[in-house]
Order: sequence, then C-alpha cells, then structure tokens
Amino acid sequence: MSSVADLLRAAINPRAVAVVGASADVGKFGGRVMQFLVKHGYPGRIVPVNPGATCVFGIPAYKSITEVGAAIDVALLALPAQHLPAALEQCGAAEVPCCVIITADFAELGDEGAAREAELVRIARSHDMRLIGPNCLGFINPHVKLALTSSVALAVEPMPKGSVGLVSQSGSMMASMISHAADSGAGFSACVTVGNQADLEICDFIEYFLQDDTTHAICTYIEGLKNGPRFLALAERCREAGKPLLAVKAGSSDAGAHLTRSHTASFAGSHAVWQAAAQSGGVLAIDDPESMIDCAHFLTRFGPARNAGVAALSPSGGTIAVTADRLYGAGLELAELVPATREALSRIVPPTRPLNPLDVGGLPREQGVSAANDAQALLSNDPSVGIVFIVVATTPHLDEKVRKWGETAIASGKPTAILFTPGRLVDSARKTLREIGCPYTDRMDDALRVIRTAVDYGRVVSMRRGEAQPPAFIAVIEKQLSQLPIGRLTEPEAKSLLRAAGLSVTSEVLATNVEDAVAAATRLGYPVVLKAVCRELVHKSDIGAVKLGLLDEDAVRNAWRDVIANVAQHFPRSRMDGCVVQEMAAGGIEVILGARWDPQFGAVVMAGAGGILVEVMSDVALALAPLGPDDARTLLQKLKIWPVLAGTRGRPALDLEALTEALARLSWIAHTAGARLLELDVNPVLVKQHGVVALDARATTGPASS
Amino acid sequence: MSSVADLLRAAINPRAVAVVGASADVGKFGGRVMQFLVKHGYPGRIVPVNPGATCVFGIPAYKSITEVGAAIDVALLALPAQHLPAALEQCGAAEVPCCVIITADFAELGDEGAAREAELVRIARSHDMRLIGPNCLGFINPHVKLALTSSVALAVEPMPKGSVGLVSQSGSMMASMISHAADSGAGFSACVTVGNQADLEICDFIEYFLQDDTTHAICTYIEGLKNGPRFLALAERCREAGKPLLAVKAGSSDAGAHLTRSHTASFAGSHAVWQAAAQSGGVLAIDDPESMIDCAHFLTRFGPARNAGVAALSPSGGTIAVTADRLYGAGLELAELVPATREALSRIVPPTRPLNPLDVGGLPREQGVSAANDAQALLSNDPSVGIVFIVVATTPHLDEKVRKWGETAIASGKPTAILFTPGRLVDSARKTLREIGCPYTDRMDDALRVIRTAVDYGRVVSMRRGEAQPPAFIAVIEKQLSQLPIGRLTEPEAKSLLRAAGLSVTSEVLATNVEDAVAAATRLGYPVVLKAVCRELVHKSDIGAVKLGLLDEDAVRNAWRDVIANVAQHFPRSRMDGCVVQEMAAGGIEVILGARWDPQFGAVVMAGAGGILVEVMSDVALALAPLGPDDARTLLQKLKIWPVLAGTRGRPALDLEALTEALARLSWIAHTAGARLLELDVNPVLVKQHGVVALDARATTGPASS
Repeated sequence: MSSVADLLRAAINPRAVAVVGASADVGKFGGRVMQFLVKHGYPGRIVPVNPGATCVFGIPAYKSITEVGAAIDVALLALPAQHLPAALEQCGAAEVPCCVIITADFAELGDEGAAREAELVRIARSHDMRLIGPNCLGFINPHVKLALTSSVALAVEPMPKGSVGLVSQSGSMMASMISHAADSGAGFSACVTVGNQADLEICDFIEYFLQDDTTHAICTYIEGLKNGPRFLALAERCREAGKPLLAVKAGSSDAGAHLTRSHTASFAGSHAVWQAAAQSGGVLAIDDPESMIDCAHFLTRFGPARNAGVAALSPSGGTIAVTADRLYGAGLELAELVPATREALSRIVPPTRPLNPLDVGGLPREQGVSAANDAQALLSNDPSVGIVFIVVATTPHLDEKVRKWGETAIASGKPTAILFTPGRLVDSARKTLREIGCPYTDRMDDALRVIRTAVDYGRVVSMRRGEAQPPAFIAVIEKQLSQLPIGRLTEPEAKSLLRAAGLSVTSEVLATNVEDAVAAATRLGYPVVLKAVCRELVHKSDIGAVKLGLLDEDAVRNAWRDVIANVAQHFPRSRMDGCVVQEMAAGGIEVILGARWDPQFGAVVMAGAGGILVEVMSDVALALAPLGPDDARTLLQKLKIWPVLAGTRGRPALDLEALTEALARLSWIAHTAGARLLELDVNPVLVKQHGVVALDARATTGPASS
Repeated sequence: MSSVADLLRAAINPRAVAVVGASADVGKFGGRVMQFLVKHGYPGRIVPVNPGATCVFGIPAYKSITEVGAAIDVALLALPAQHLPAALEQCGAAEVPCCVIITADFAELGDEGAAREAELVRIARSHDMRLIGPNCLGFINPHVKLALTSSVALAVEPMPKGSVGLVSQSGSMMASMISHAADSGAGFSACVTVGNQADLEICDFIEYFLQDDTTHAICTYIEGLKNGPRFLALAERCREAGKPLLAVKAGSSDAGAHLTRSHTASFAGSHAVWQAAAQSGGVLAIDDPESMIDCAHFLTRFGPARNAGVAALSPSGGTIAVTADRLYGAGLELAELVPATREALSRIVPPTRPLNPLDVGGLPREQGVSAANDAQALLSNDPSVGIVFIVVATTPHLDEKVRKWGETAIASGKPTAILFTPGRLVDSARKTLREIGCPYTDRMDDALRVIRTAVDYGRVVSMRRGEAQPPAFIAVIEKQLSQLPIGRLTEPEAKSLLRAAGLSVTSEVLATNVEDAVAAATRLGYPVVLKAVCRELVHKSDIGAVKLGLLDEDAVRNAWRDVIANVAQHFPRSRMDGCVVQEMAAGGIEVILGARWDPQFGAVVMAGAGGILVEVMSDVALALAPLGPDDARTLLQKLKIWPVLAGTRGRPALDLEALTEALARLSWIAHTAGARLLELDVNPVLVKQHGVVALDARATTGPASS
C-alpha cells in the first residue's frame, strides 16, 4: 500500500473526480460542488452520481458509482447522513481510494453522532479507503483548476494560485482565507478542510504538503491535534525542508476550547502547553487566520529575517511616529543602522529628522521619488537591518513610489513589509504590487504580525537542535519510580524522585515520634522545620501542619504536639507517617519548578517565580521535556524574574548554573516517567549565591498506561 | 471680538474662500487645492490669487488679495516660505480673519524655522487674524462640499459626509482616515489638519466641534498638546455634551516621541501621564488612526455600551471559536445570558453548542436565515448584553442574513459590531450595510477596538465626577513648603511635607553626634536604623550610609562610625547634617507612592509595588492630582499587587483604608505644591494590617514659576 502522501497526491491532483449526490440545484451542496467544478474549468473527468438524473451541468450522470467502470481518484459525498453508509460501501466496491464527506452532524453532536462517525470509518477501513471529513467543505487545488468544495467562496474566480498549502478544520475559515488571499495577491498550492478528522487528519496533509513541490509554506487552522508528537515531528521536517509551518490554534480561552468540541468534536488541550510545544517545534503560532495567509505569503516571497532589526520608512511624518509607537508596543526592535547608512541617509533628509524610523515625506519636489527609493535601498543594504518596513500613506507620486519600492524589495531579496494606510483610494498601487508579486498588508496590525513572523522564522531556521543526551541517572529515576505508589505522593516520596535525579533537597529526617524528631533536630542543627507527613494533606501550611524556625528542643516538642493536633483535627481519618525534621534554609530567591503530563504533547516542565510573585503576576514558562542545559537556560530567561536572579542594581547574581542544571534534571524525571508522573511541583526552590535547594515537593503518579 | 468657535464656524463654513498661490498645475499645492475646490462642487465664492494669472480653473484670478474688495472668510496660502510674510500682511490688509498655511519647513526644522514661524504669528496677531498650520494640509467640510486641502485623498469623490469631527496634526494621516471612512461608510462633519499649531491648535477645533450641531463624535490625532489642562477641561465638556472624544496620541515610544519633534515640532510629553490624563478625562485613547474613525462612527450610530457584556455569534464554528479566544485575549467579557435568553436559544441550536459565543452555522436549511436573525434578536434583547458582536463568515444566504442583521441592529439600538472575515468576495453585503447606515469592520483587530471603545465609553458616560474637597491641612502644607529650600531635599525635609499632610512616617530623631544618636535609640527603643542625612546623597544604601537592625548601643556606635566614614569616602566635599535614628519597622508589604510635576498636565501621583517587585514588573499606576478617596482606591486597584494587599489565599487583608488615605493626602501635597514640587518619592511605604508607614522619602523642589 502506498503512503498517505502518495494517496493524497492522487486525490488532490486527480484525473477523475466523482460527486455522489450531484445536483443541478446550486442551493444544494451537491449542486454547488458541481457548479464550482465546472466553473473553475477542472480539466479532468467529472463524474456526477445521482440515481435520479441522467445529466448534471451537462455532464452524463451515473445512478451508482459502481457503474462508472473507470478509476476514480477521489469522490465527494454530498448526501444526507443516513445515506452515507450505503454510499461509502459503494465507493468501496468501486475501489475509490479517498472519499470527502461534507455532511455534518456527527461526533460534534455527541456520543450518538460519534458512533455514526465511527461506523463510516469502519466501512472505509474495510475497503482500504481513506476519508476526509466528515463536517468539512472539501478542498481546492488551484494548480489543476480543481474546486472540490461547496464553499461559496469559490463563487469568485479565478482561485488564487500560489505556493501556500492550507489545511483547516473549519470550512468557513478556509473561505475567508481564500477571499483574503485573492484580495492581497497571496495564493495556494491547495486548501484542504478536514472537519472532524475522523480518519485523515491535519498531520496527513502537512505530510502531503511537505512532499509537494509547489508548496513553500504550510498554514494550519487547528481545533485539536490527533497526535501531538507526530505534529511536532512533522514540524521538525518542515524546518529541515525550509517550509515554514504556521498555525492558528483555537482554544486559548475556555470559551474557545468549549466551542472546538461542538464544532469539530476536537479536544483543544492546554493552550499553554500548545504554545510551549509550538515554540519548541519552530511552529509559527498566529492569532488571526487571514493574517496567517499574509505571513505565509511573505515568507514564501522573502524567507526569514536574518536578524530582528526593523528599519521603517514612510512619506508621512505622523504615520511614521505612530509606526514607531506600534513597533515598540509589539516588542519589535529598531535596527541600529551602521554609520555608512546613517551618513548616506543624512544627505537625504533634514538634520532634525531621526533616521530610523525615517520620515521621507515633504522633501523638495524633485527629490521626492528618488529620495524615497534611495532611502529604501540604503536600509535594504544595511547589514543591521533584518527587515524593512515601508508604511505607504498618501503622498505625491504614490503609484510611482510604490512600484519602485516593490521592485527594489523583490530585487534586493531583503524582507520588506509594505503597508498601505489609505483604503481603496490607492488600489492602483496595490494592483501594481500584486502584479510584481510583492506582498503587502492593509492594516498596521497585520503588518506587525508579518514582521514578527519573519523575525520569529529567522529564529526558527537558526535553531540549533541540541540532541539532549540521556543522562546516567535515568536508571536511578526508573528504579525509584518503580518503588513509588500510584496516586498522591508524600513530600519524602516526591523528594526521593528529586534525589534520584541528583537535585539538591533540604537535609531532612523522617521521625515517627517526638524523641526521634528531637534527636534529628540536634543532628541537623537548629533552627529546624517540622512538617507533617500525610498523604491526604496537600496544603500543609493552611492547617498548621508546618512549623518553621524552631530554635531549640522545647520548640520542637511544642511544634510536634501542635502539628499532630492540627492534622488530627482537620483530617481525623488520615494516616500520618510522622513528621519530617528539616534544616531551615534561608536567603536567596524562591522559584517554582514543576512537571506535568500533557495528554497531547507528553511530558512538560514549568518554571516560575515563587512566593508572593506567583500571586501577583503569572510569571511562568513551559517547555517540552527533556531539556538540555541550553534549553533550560532559554526557558528560565523567559521569566520576568530572570534579571533579578541574574543580579540587578548591585544585587549579587545567584547560582544560575545550578538552577539551570536543576531544571534540566527535573525535565529528565518528567521525560523518564512519562504518563506515570501526572504532576510534580517543587515549590519553593531556593536559588542562592551558591547552589539551589528544593524546600518542598508534591507529586501525583499515574499508571504507566495512562 | 467673536470667540474662536465663531471664527472657526465662519472659516469652516465659509461663503468665500481665497487660494493665494492658486495654480492651474495640479502638480503644485496651489493647483491641487484649486482642483479639489472645484471638483467637489464648493458652492461658495472661490477667489484664486496669483499675480501671474488672470484665470485659474476657469475662475477669474486676482493679482493680490487686497484687490478682491469683498469679504473672504478663509484664505489658504500655497506659497514658498519666503513669500509668506508678505502674503500674510496682504491678507491682514484685506481683513481676512483666518489663514491656512500648508507650507512646511518651519519649527520642525529647528530654531531658525521656529523664528520664521514666530514671525508669521506676529504678523497675524498684528492684524487680529488667526492661523491654521503651518505644515498642515488644510481642511474639508463635506457638508458644504468644501475641500480646502492639497491632500491627494480628495482625488476621490464624494467626500464622506457624516457626523465625526476630526482634527489631526498630520495631513497625511487625515488622508488615510478619509479614505478608510469612505470605504467603510463612516463620514465627517469636518476634518482639519493643524500641523505645527503655531496659532490655532487642537483644542480650538475641539471647541468648534463641541458647538457644531453636525458633529456627534470628535477624533483627534495629537503629537503634542499646547495646553493640557485646557484639553482636559474640553474633554469634560465633551462628556457633558454626550460627544465622545477619541484620541490617537503619538509618543508612546522614545522613537515616536522623537519623531513628533521633527514632524510638527511637538513635545510629546510623558506618555504615562497622557494615559492617566486621558483616562481621568474620559478621553478614549486608541492606538490606530483608521480604527479610531471606525470607533467614532460606531459611537455616533449606537452610543455607549450600557454594560461590558459581549454576546457574539457567527455562522462559522471555527470563526466563533477564534472569536472567543480573541475576545478573551483583548480582556473583554462574555455576557452571562439571562435564563430566558438561554432557554430560547437552546431551541435554535443543537444542545452540544455553547450559547455565548454562539455558532449559528450549519442549522437545517429552512431555519438558516431566520435562526441567525432570531438569535441576534434574542441577544439584543438580553439585559446582560451590553454589545452584540456578529462575525460574518461565508455562509449560504449571506446577503440576506447580513441585511437582516444590520436592520435589526439599527432598529434595536443595541450596540452591534459587525465584522466581515471574508474580503471583497462579500462586498455586496458591505454595500448593504453602508446603505442602511450600519457600521462594520473588516478585521478582527478593528472589531475588538470598536467593542472596547464602546465599553469604555459606557464607563465614561457613567463616570461620577467627585469634586475633591480641599482638606484642612492644605494650609499646613503651604507653610511647610515655604520653609523648604529649592532643589534636592534631605530625607527629614521630604518627610516634613508628608507629616504636614498627616501621613504616618517612622518615628525618628536627627542626631548630630554619636551620643545624641545613642540617646535617641534608647528613647525610640531597639532595634533602630541609622541613616546619613546629606543633601548630595540620593542612593544612601548603595554607599553604606544606611544601617538597619541595630540591636544595642554598641551597634549604634559602630554604625555611626561606619556611616560617617562611608559618606566621607564617597562624597568628600559634601556637607552632612548628621544621621537620623529611626524606629525599625517590620512586617507588611512594601509599596511606593510618588508625585511628579508634569509640564503638560500638572501634578501627577503614582502608586506602585515596592521592593523586588519593582524590578521584576512595572506595576505602577498614575493619576492626576488631587484624588478623592474613591479615586485613590480606583488607582490602587489597578495595581497587580492589589489582590495581595487585599488579602489572598488566607493571607490577612492589609490596611487598604490607610493606604488609600495616604495616597489621597499625598495627592494634595502634589496639587498644593504644583510646579514647586518637581518630584517626591516615598519608598518604601509599609502597608500593615493596621496602618501604613513611610520609611523613606526623597524630593526635589523647584521655583514657583516653573
């Protein structure tokens, strides 16, 4: 059997297409599909199937697909749900390799719909046939003039042809993206909607686009991933192939995640984990679907920005001031122009004007056009500039200036984002750019996304893929894991995992009676901490089961009595293992380290600011485990608290090496344990000038199969 | 003499307009102005003035404006800079009340240009004549078909007529806004560009629009305000008049602020203060000029959102999921629908679908159009819904649905934001909405701005203007101020101002020798703090001039010796007043309170998180002084640290009353002192369970006239 990519190549570039449920009524799905197939001039064989018609849109129709007697590469089924099983069986009998089911009302309606959906998949499997959908709108391939879709977006022709491959769980969003692309000069190698992904899923199409030579960038609209690790592996292949992978992922809000279930029966998963996964996989995450097409179009034209420096110019002084503000607000950097560029620019504009961003407006008349173009060339050639940003406002000779800007952008190859601030007034200039193949945007928000994406993609292509080497202590972690119970762990149990990975934890002794506790305190040295050890107890401090700063034997005895009483009062049925006596650590700054098992992406680690900072701001960063030391450092550097740890305003730098090492080790615990470690929180970890130490830990384990 | 608003009414609604420097060459400013005057059908008298022409655009020309012999309401001067003084003198001789100068290269080029600009103003004053510009692009008044501008935006006709008044420092940005409005169905009562504001400034035109009955919303693009308090007073009048005042203000970045100087010689000022001033004045600050027009258009149609609850619907399940995410990301709230609405909606959509945001797509065919419309009506009528958000994606019967949505929106009066996600594919639906006067946007970013602005305006119209009553201690502050030196204050001097306003400060004694210090420590009770008092010393801790936690007499003696030595070493020429001995305060949470004199807006107060939080995150909020207790609380509630102060996770609430009171009292110090108090930092202020106490303070005073 051929690979999925081969199968999809045949289906997306078919010689013969069947429409089961073909109709002459364009108010029906099967009518619109036929209309668009014919209208866009698909040159292959179109096979309408309809038991009640002899001819649809002038094309001879068949009563059943089994009567066709010739190979069909793909069949679209535009039928009510109750007729689908029989129709699928017939497609199977006719040896159709791939069917598109646009009918909705399956798994997105709940269990009953899910069962009907599963039946469709079962039928397909029994015939070695693959399905796209259900609850999708089919696909288009502009390169072969194929519009196999009921989307009303195809009412307009021609289809925008280009090199962006799109796979979307939403049909209607595909339509908006096609419309946006048609307006802006972007185009597609193919656009596929996958709806509920009952069988073929987003990753199958990414794999197709990877192998498709006409595709130079891949866009995805994702409601839920069927297989997170496969997606990330494909992302890595996209990176290697130089094809940027862009994604709009629904579900960053609870309401959005809720809607993905009722829309395509998709499980959105943790958005924070998605973001971490996307970042580690070099996926360019974007919040707006139409803007994603702009970004992909830009990357297919210019590739990545080689550095993050932006140089902006405009013929409008007000516009360029606002542009400077917006770039700053978006966290983008202005390039520090090299002296030669500064010197040359200073001969073009009056001495009071800043050079980046650059106002090229209101220059003496004879210089207007050439100065605007010369300035662009100077900025393009400046090695400090990763991307040039031209903000077109109304200006004399606008058409001429824009043409030159576009031509220079294309000729130089320097990523150049062109934004039009006026509306349809300057459509002739837009048309010029479309004709020469130069991307542009119409709104500042979109321009900023394009610039951000080009800069991000520059970082993606230069990502070093440090193969994290499994450390020697993995076997120790494995052994320790095998000895732990399943469910909630006690503090000493959780810490035993940390110790197995070589993390530094507070010196402590488990005492089962007060005399042992006093002896332990003497051995550890005062002051000490006393904490109840009790599996049921999660928030120990809240019920007085933790006593800090015990200075002498009397204090320990009193504390023991109080702790026992407090636990007995709040958890009368719980079984207490005793108390740990710990050294009292002090100084340094508190952070939190943690790990989670994510059902979509697997083991995830987390670092964050500790103490009061946790409540005040969400200063947390995530990454997929395992992490090498460089990855761990990169993660920690994302924290707002990083500069404080690194030493600011005369405060000494803390032991960042030890913290980095601890996070990396923790990531190996998570990676090794996999689904067996549902969550692990080390809170707080004290970062000191020399070393770090874990003061407390809690964890929950799960069965290996979960 | 008539008021400025009367003068501007005559100028903006003129019976006769002169163009000095009129030309037949549309490549010249004076040619384009004439072209647009004629093209847009201005029905009043057009008077071309050009010594070398007898007729321009078919209209008899005059050699000099003094020869006209009839009243001219406004003259536009399209002349090279060197000819302007003579031309202005002639306008004055001809008793023209108002001149528009579009010529650039004045104050924005530096001192020499500023001098030439001042000369123009002097000439105008000598003739009791007012100036618009220089370095502007004139104005338009669509209601009288007057385009008195050289902006190429006017090449398209007709001018978009409506009820939004625009005053912009940038001519080119006015052009983009006009173009955007023309596309989207928005329109203007008038658009005025003011460039360098050498004479007439933004506030003059706000005053005009306030009195102009055709203006229902006022938009401003501001690079620098000539008179902050006047602007705020006008903002208050706008609020009372029910005319929303919107502003895009350049200068939120250093680069942007720099550009306002070279563009219109404007001083952008502190953006943080601008934001505080705008908020306290009920000004709707927006970051995007074209979007500002959308927002104003929306407000003129629907007025404010009566509450912050958003109800969203779309015929696309994918689009509505993304919409939910974007609303969340923008910090907007989803309305909690009332039971009756929920019940009625649940009869329209399948039970698996959430009801807000609402997916009205893929419903049975015969229900499609009516269901979409019924759902809107239900949401519109729900009292929990402040604003309805309809996201139009491709859908069967799109034109019909959109028309009904638009009509229902207008008929219901409920603020309804309509967004089109497809591009020009659905232009016919856009045209329908324009025809029925229903606003819409084409990008999610803009829709979110519109919704945010409608919600913000709802808050503005319900703002209670609490008259802050001057407290009795003002006289004490005045007396204390009069006794302080000008320049940097010592800690005891700064604290004397706090004490004058009744703020609680640490108990302390100024000691000039070690024996006095020891005696003071004994009196205050150990532990104590010892700090050098020395005017030159700003960062006392950094050089070891502060000793904390002194436990006994020996410690005080050692500390005294060290402090004296450290100051002598680092500031050998400084004059030390001695040391203060202070009680050692402990517990609570540190905050910062402060005050600044802002040259644009006057006395400003600031509150922020203290200690390590200051370095990690910028948790600071500003407001104009003085503050009543409610205002002070509102300000403090903006801080991220507020929930911590208010008591979270079992931590006790701190004394928020005392903190609020302290901030209000501080604001009266700032308000009373005015320009005499350049800055005051009280850092830290310890917020305790009972009371607050200022541990340290520093301040700089200035002469009263500054």
